[in-house]
Amino acid sequence: MITLGIDPGTAICGYGLVETHGSRIKALTYGVIETHPDMSSAMRLKKIHQEVDSLIKQFKPDVMGVELLFMNKNVRTVMAVGQARGVVLLAAAQNDLRLAEFTPLQVKQAVTGYGKASKEQVIYMTQRLLNLPDKPHPDDAADALAVAICTVHCNSINRMRVTDDWLC
Amino acid sequence: MITLGIDPGTAICGYGLVETHGSRIKALTYGVIETHPDMSSAMRLKKIHQEVDSLIKQFKPDVMGVELLFMNKNVRTVMAVGQARGVVLLAAAQNDLRLAEFTPLQVKQAVTGYGKASKEQVIYMTQRLLNLPDKPHPDDAADALAVAICTVHCNSINRMRVTDDWLC
Repeated sequence: MITLGIDPGTAICGYGLVETHGSRIKALTYGVIETHPDMSSAMRLKKIHQEVDSLIKQFKPDVMGVELLFMNKNVRTVMAVGQARGVVLLAAAQNDLRLAEFTPLQVKQAVTGYGKASKEQVIYMTQRLLNLPDKPHPDDAADALAVAICTVHCNSINRMRVTDDWLC
Repeated sequence: MITLGIDPGTAICGYGLVETHGSRIKALTYGVIETHPDMSSAMRLKKIHQEVDSLIKQFKPDVMGVELLFMNKNVRTVMAVGQARGVVLLAAAQNDLRLAEFTPLQVKQAVTGYGKASKEQVIYMTQRLLNLPDKPHPDDAADALAVAICTVHCNSINRMRVTDDWLC
């Protein structure tokens, strides 16, 4: 099974693709979609949508996991991330992709066993679980891989409905 | 010139299309795109994107005006509206549509001359300015028409760049 994890953002949108065979899990690819502040917000969203759509068409994941926003950020940030999430969820729906959403706490819990783990702990465990030679970076790509791992864990204990949101 | 005004939202997304010839302005159509709470958020966003895209392809507006979010709403609401705005802005960018964003204060100022006008005043003036036989309703459609009027006013005093955001 192939799982795409997304850490949505307008300036930097992290993605991570993992493949599982039974209990084995490995990273296929990961990285970030970056958009320049000089671009209009509409053109930034178009780029994010295009690149997420390309990842889906290229790797044909079975499911997409998307991080839910921290609830303590300022309203302007929430709106910008919401817009990016909007086009990411749209790409999932347009490609009939199963979709799951997780809070940062759930992602940390799934990857480290502790919902209040530090960013460093999450990156360390993501590297170990995926048996990567180096720490995944930048942070947004590492976060996206962690979301993908969380999605895999959640998928193994949940039955999912096609293109319906679900929470672990 | 044809102008599309949008009042974005996930449950109800208002739209209003107006046409101008010199100083004359008339409504072409207006209404709301509604999505059911039973739908997944991804499917709701897909419906909004499809219908806004259809409006653009059918009426071929020259410019789209979109309302900026009130800044005093709760974070969950801001994120939901942000996601809807994301797919609306994407539809604009995918159709090479010029785009403008306005705060509610700017919209009220443009339609009534007073930035703190009540909703009833805005609806009343929208009806008068467009010479509509009845009050436009529901409120989200009336808001979208008001955004379209604001966009027309702003357009007459600004030079716009294609697919770039601009603020009046």
